[in-house]
Order: sequence, then C-alpha cells, then structure tokens
Amino acid sequence: MAEDEVILLGFSASVFGIRPRIALEEKEVKYEYREELLVGNNKSPLLLPMNPIHKKIPVLIHNGKPICESLIEVEYIDEMWKDKALLLPSDPYERAQARFWADYIDKKLYDPAKKIHITKGDELEAAKRDLIEVLKMLEGTYFNFSIEAEGPKIVGWGNRCMQRDSVAKTLPDQRKILELPKLIRQRLGIE
Amino acid sequence: MAEDEVILLGFSASVFGIRPRIALEEKEVKYEYREELLVGNNKSPLLLPMNPIHKKIPVLIHNGKPICESLIEVEYIDEMWKDKALLLPSDPYERAQARFWADYIDKKLYDPAKKIHITKGDELEAAKRDLIEVLKMLEGTYFNFSIEAEGPKIVGWGNRCMQRDSVAKTLPDQRKILELPKLIRQRLGIE
Repeated sequence: MAEDEVILLGFSASVFGIRPRIALEEKEVKYEYREELLVGNNKSPLLLPMNPIHKKIPVLIHNGKPICESLIEVEYIDEMWKDKALLLPSDPYERAQARFWADYIDKKLYDPAKKIHITKGDELEAAKRDLIEVLKMLEGTYFNFSIEAEGPKIVGWGNRCMQRDSVAKTLPDQRKILELPKLIRQRLGIE
Repeated sequence: MAEDEVILLGFSASVFGIRPRIALEEKEVKYEYREELLVGNNKSPLLLPMNPIHKKIPVLIHNGKPICESLIEVEYIDEMWKDKALLLPSDPYERAQARFWADYIDKKLYDPAKKIHITKGDELEAAKRDLIEVLKMLEGTYFNFSIEAEGPKIVGWGNRCMQRDSVAKTLPDQRKILELPKLIRQRLGIE
C-alpha cells in the first residue's frame, strides 16, 4: 500500500485549526501543514473545493478526500490511526462525556471569547461575564474567580497539555497571538 | 447481569428528542419514555439533575447515568448496542461524512426553521430564504424550488424514513405539530 498522503489546511491562530494538528502529532502521522492566509481574499485554491459548504479551516485531506469540522477531524484521526495514542476514551459512556464537553466548548465558549475581541462598552462587559460563567462551569466551582488565581484545575490542565510535545510544538507564538486582537480591533475601528 | 434500565426524557414535538428515540427503536432496546412538559415551569424533577448544564431534553439515562445532546446520544446508543442496526457507517471516512451532515443540520437548519415560527415581516422572509438555501444545499441542487415539487431527493429520503417502524411510531401526530407554531405565535403576540 502506498504511503498515506495527509494535508492539513489551517490557520495557526485558530483554536479550531490547532485541534487536528495536535491529534496528528499525538498519532505521529506524517502530514503536510499548509497555513491559509485568511485575511483578505487570500484563500488558497484548495480551500473552497475541499470545504465548499463552510469555506473554513481546518480541512484535513487524506489521500485526496476532505474531512471538515475540527472535532469530526479529531474523531476521524482517532479512528483511522487507532494503534497509537487513543484520543477518546474506549468506554462508550466516557466517550459520550468527552464529546459532551467538546461540544459545550464549541457552543458556549467560542462566542463570548470572540466578542471580547470585537466589541466594546456594555457588549464587551456582557461578553466577559458570559466567558467567566463558562469558565466557572468548566472549573466546576461556583465562586467568583480570576482564571489564574481561582481556576486551578483549568490552569493545571493547560500546564499538563503544554508538557506534551504535540501541544507545545503546535501552539502558535504567544506574542503573535497577543497582537492579533489588537489588529482586529484596529481593523474594526474599535481602537 | 441485571437488565439495563433505559429512560429517555423527551418532548414529542422536538426534532432533537426524536433522534435518540428512533435510535433506540432501531436497536430494539426496551426503554421508558417520559414526556417532559416544557411549557411553563413544569420541568420534571429528573431533568435538572440529569442535565444541569443545558437543562434541555433529550436526556438518555442508562442505568442511572445521563447522556445529553441528541447526536451524542445517538452515537452512544450505536456504540453501546452494537449487535443490531448499525446507525453510523463502519468506514471512518463515511462516518466523518455522516457526522458532518448531522452537524450541518444542527448549525444551519434549526435556527431559520425556528425563526419561521417566531418572527414576522422582513425577519420572517429572511428566515424563509435562509431555510431554502439550506434545503437546496441538502438537496444538492442550485435551482429555485418548493420542497415538495423540486426537492425530490429530500422528499424521497423522508418517505423512505417513514417506512421504518422506528420512525413512523416515533414521529408525533402531525395535526398536533401543525397547531404548535400557531400556539407559539399567539403566545408571542405575533398573531
């Protein structure tokens, strides 16, 4: 059998794009990563034919066939390369719980996190409150807290993640990430 | 091993509630169905402790342990009772495609379908256009059409579904369903 051809279309600042990269790294799958220039009209000629429905990264292309939506890609990677680094638990109930929390992140965390970058005034304050509610839920506490000081479980989880090569080498340069919201806000005329 | 205790908390007019019911029927799993009275403050004492995060139906309770979110429940049912009626394809790529379209329905179809019941005027017209776009995408055509006359694949799929006992016996009484939007509109003061 010829070797698998695996291409990932991504954008390094995207939390969604990072998911399948970490999965591929954990599985030690050889893949070609292509950074999509999503700003302006610079989408690559591959992105639209490979994801004509949502027109978004990440897209995993395995032997010419596209798989879209980051969580679906992670499950595909887990099922396709099952001999190494099981990503989801093998017990069906535990799998359902893992899927529930991943789905919760997508449904509840992303919108307020995005709004923090692109709103101001009351809307910004509301987004902050929403985000803190979500973080509190993830943390499993019901007290007021700042993430660093009072969300020790989330912070601990993040630290354990960073000790994995698959995560450490996939996460983008933090300085660049910190510049991005400022660029977005300038572009939107918020500051 | 004692027999499994399977309880499903649902609401018969909910498209989400119907999913795990059809899955259980296909698998011929014995289960107790409990209709939740979602109108007003009539949520059952089981719903909140079993789904404290989203506080919504459907909730599948298997030997006392809750599984939430309809698509996650369907996958759980498929994995837990694997000897009968495979619901997802066994090939990982086909599974990814099935998951993609189920996710597409949740992300794109539900909101405009809901808005049609609870809006009027320009907002209503916009919701209709959005819904037709989604149906056209599902149909795989790019022509103007009415669902019945020009969406033959979707209608054919619906008809094939109705020939399955699991679907025919689970779908709610159509007359009751047709009354529901009117009740909602009256309650919202739209008509």
